Amino acid sequence: MKRSRNLRIDGDRLWNSIMEVAKIGATDKGGNNRLALTDLDRDCRDLFIKWCKEAGCTVSIDKIGNIFARRQGKNPKSPTVMTGSHLDTQPTGGRFDGVFGVLAGLEIIRTLNDVKAETEHPIDIVVWTNEEGSRFAPAMMASAVFSGKYDLDETLKIKDQGGVTIGEELERIGYSGDERVGERELYAYLEAHIEQGPILESEKKDIGVVTGAHGQRWYEITLTGVESHAGPTPMDIRKDALLGSAQVINLVNQIGLKYLPNSCATVGMLEVYPNSRNVIPGQVFLTIDFRHQNIDLLDYMDKDIREGISSITKSIGLTFKIEEVLYLPPIIFDDTCINSVRKSAIENGYSWREINSGAGHDACNVAAIAPTSMIFIPCIDGISHNEAENAKPEWITSGGQVLLTSVTDLAKLI
Amino acid sequence: MKRSRNLRIDGDRLWNSIMEVAKIGATDKGGNNRLALTDLDRDCRDLFIKWCKEAGCTVSIDKIGNIFARRQGKNPKSPTVMTGSHLDTQPTGGRFDGVFGVLAGLEIIRTLNDVKAETEHPIDIVVWTNEEGSRFAPAMMASAVFSGKYDLDETLKIKDQGGVTIGEELERIGYSGDERVGERELYAYLEAHIEQGPILESEKKDIGVVTGAHGQRWYEITLTGVESHAGPTPMDIRKDALLGSAQVINLVNQIGLKYLPNSCATVGMLEVYPNSRNVIPGQVFLTIDFRHQNIDLLDYMDKDIREGISSITKSIGLTFKIEEVLYLPPIIFDDTCINSVRKSAIENGYSWREINSGAGHDACNVAAIAPTSMIFIPCIDGISHNEAENAKPEWITSGGQVLLTSVTDLAKLI
Repeated sequence: MKRSRNLRIDGDRLWNSIMEVAKIGATDKGGNNRLALTDLDRDCRDLFIKWCKEAGCTVSIDKIGNIFARRQGKNPKSPTVMTGSHLDTQPTGGRFDGVFGVLAGLEIIRTLNDVKAETEHPIDIVVWTNEEGSRFAPAMMASAVFSGKYDLDETLKIKDQGGVTIGEELERIGYSGDERVGERELYAYLEAHIEQGPILESEKKDIGVVTGAHGQRWYEITLTGVESHAGPTPMDIRKDALLGSAQVINLVNQIGLKYLPNSCATVGMLEVYPNSRNVIPGQVFLTIDFRHQNIDLLDYMDKDIREGISSITKSIGLTFKIEEVLYLPPIIFDDTCINSVRKSAIENGYSWREINSGAGHDACNVAAIAPTSMIFIPCIDGISHNEAENAKPEWITSGGQVLLTSVTDLAKLI
Repeated sequence: MKRSRNLRIDGDRLWNSIMEVAKIGATDKGGNNRLALTDLDRDCRDLFIKWCKEAGCTVSIDKIGNIFARRQGKNPKSPTVMTGSHLDTQPTGGRFDGVFGVLAGLEIIRTLNDVKAETEHPIDIVVWTNEEGSRFAPAMMASAVFSGKYDLDETLKIKDQGGVTIGEELERIGYSGDERVGERELYAYLEAHIEQGPILESEKKDIGVVTGAHGQRWYEITLTGVESHAGPTPMDIRKDALLGSAQVINLVNQIGLKYLPNSCATVGMLEVYPNSRNVIPGQVFLTIDFRHQNIDLLDYMDKDIREGISSITKSIGLTFKIEEVLYLPPIIFDDTCINSVRKSAIENGYSWREINSGAGHDACNVAAIAPTSMIFIPCIDGISHNEAENAKPEWITSGGQVLLTSVTDLAKLI
């Protein structure tokens, strides 16, 4: 049996492929704007499939638009070792988030092809639809359907802010496939990804061996007061929905600090109504994103925000609505997969540390149905979901190399 | 000489005219959305001019789109007694703000026509362009050009958020007139308006004799931090522009409370960038509206906000830009005009009080070039700049009646 650590990926080829994809939806500031199921997302999917076919893969698309590119194993009936990520981005996203994991998967296939190596299990590269959730909420939607957490038909009906459904957009861009969602049997799932945080870079670690992911609770809040003229309405009779929102934003931040370490709390979206300079705002819509590694502390954060909003709105004379739109419990990854990643980092001579993911990933959904882990690489200044998101070529190479060693370990290189 | 107090307006006719105009740009919630220089604004102007011509007036339009409808005086060369207001509304505006003052002017002409009365001076009804400033900032723009405060050519170049200029929109809707702006010589200016605050109603006064107006300082603020992923970015290294903005909103409110009475402080508009649920906001744009009757205290408010924003942004690691986009010093109206309004209220048997206007009005600009005062009537719950804005028919009648008595007093009824 060939020792998988003797195989080396072509780091330049992987880097160049990432740069090629980054041209699709490139922004002036060097990032990417490639929202899910837009024309640009379609162009990117088309290019990926072209490359996979050139690498000899069989490509299938399922009914939620997930793409699977298979390199057949010696035993075609055996469950697949799947790797991949997503190609959609935030509206002001970077070049590496998602794309690195997908193309690292392709690089493994290319490397195996170069040396005509075979594996016992098939290897699948997957592109999950709409990981970001920017255009269609919630995030990581298609891997949730794949793992049986969301219903397919309900998900296809979800609309963007313009009222267009996922089903309609999949049809329009030609990615409403025939394969039943969740049909593939998985032996293991590995996802390579940039850390999207500052820890690996600041500790000078090449590789993050990902042991699990923070739980998440997302909320939509509407505060309603009375819009009125900013001049003649005395300070003491105002019911200013934006003043209430300001206090909610401060509270969200205090809750984030209260449950440190491993807590995050963010208001990312806020819309003011009617949003006119000399009108006291009558209504504000805002979102909250809470994360924690500990499920009990996540519950405390929930309790704190509900009590706090109730008390803030009461004191200003507002009414409020709070709706929890996403609940993801903390995820613990599979020991065998974690060990494979750790072993691969060590065998390849890279520095590493265990890390828990603050971000959600499709791997968190897949973990419910298959042994799963992830491989993190550093990104510069920890910046992600930002056009300035960046990674050094050597980090891309080390991440791809560890993925190669782990995937060929799990898929059993012959 | 006829005693002007023997003339009576037709309150039903005035009310019905207001209701007729309210059909143009009516909203589902019973208000009006008739932004300056839109098609709806044009339709409203067209209807007003039709009515004025039916009442025998000569109509002129100046180069900034102000409309003047003249009922000639016995001495055509004598300076005019002008009254009026505006027909544009906030995006979620009411049926009375502006419209009441314009149609109260028309009702005076109709009443004088009914009894074939003559005045020594001409009487002009004016419709000022873009009083609200919602679509094109700043507010009260065209009366400022009329009174020589703003330059005509510069003003015509001001753009809305879609990049369209005032000059282009005036041409498009057919209201770029020939008359030189500010050509008319004024003997006096009176403007009837709803109070847009709660004082008259709560004190059960029919009429507010307006002695002046609060000064105003408007600002545009941009806070810039670093947008980054809401999950893996630890709380302690965030540069969250929305968190900074929340502290600015709280500070603005504190400043409003600090300089009571006669102070107002409002953040009415706020835009988040990139405005995505799981991205820490990298930039926020917001507006501040400060008002005070006392010019020195308005300066203290300015000093407080500049120091406060500097300190808030420093503590969070943000940068900021602050630009003052409007400065209106407090206005003191003309004693003769104020006395005429007070006398009219008394002679007609109405209850009254002196009041300083928290809102800016075109009258504040005209006060720089002609003797000026205003007549306030109550509005329900003090609500204005809101689709729920409302007034009782008897208030409309008493306001119109006081305007009639004052205008015919100043224009010298023969």
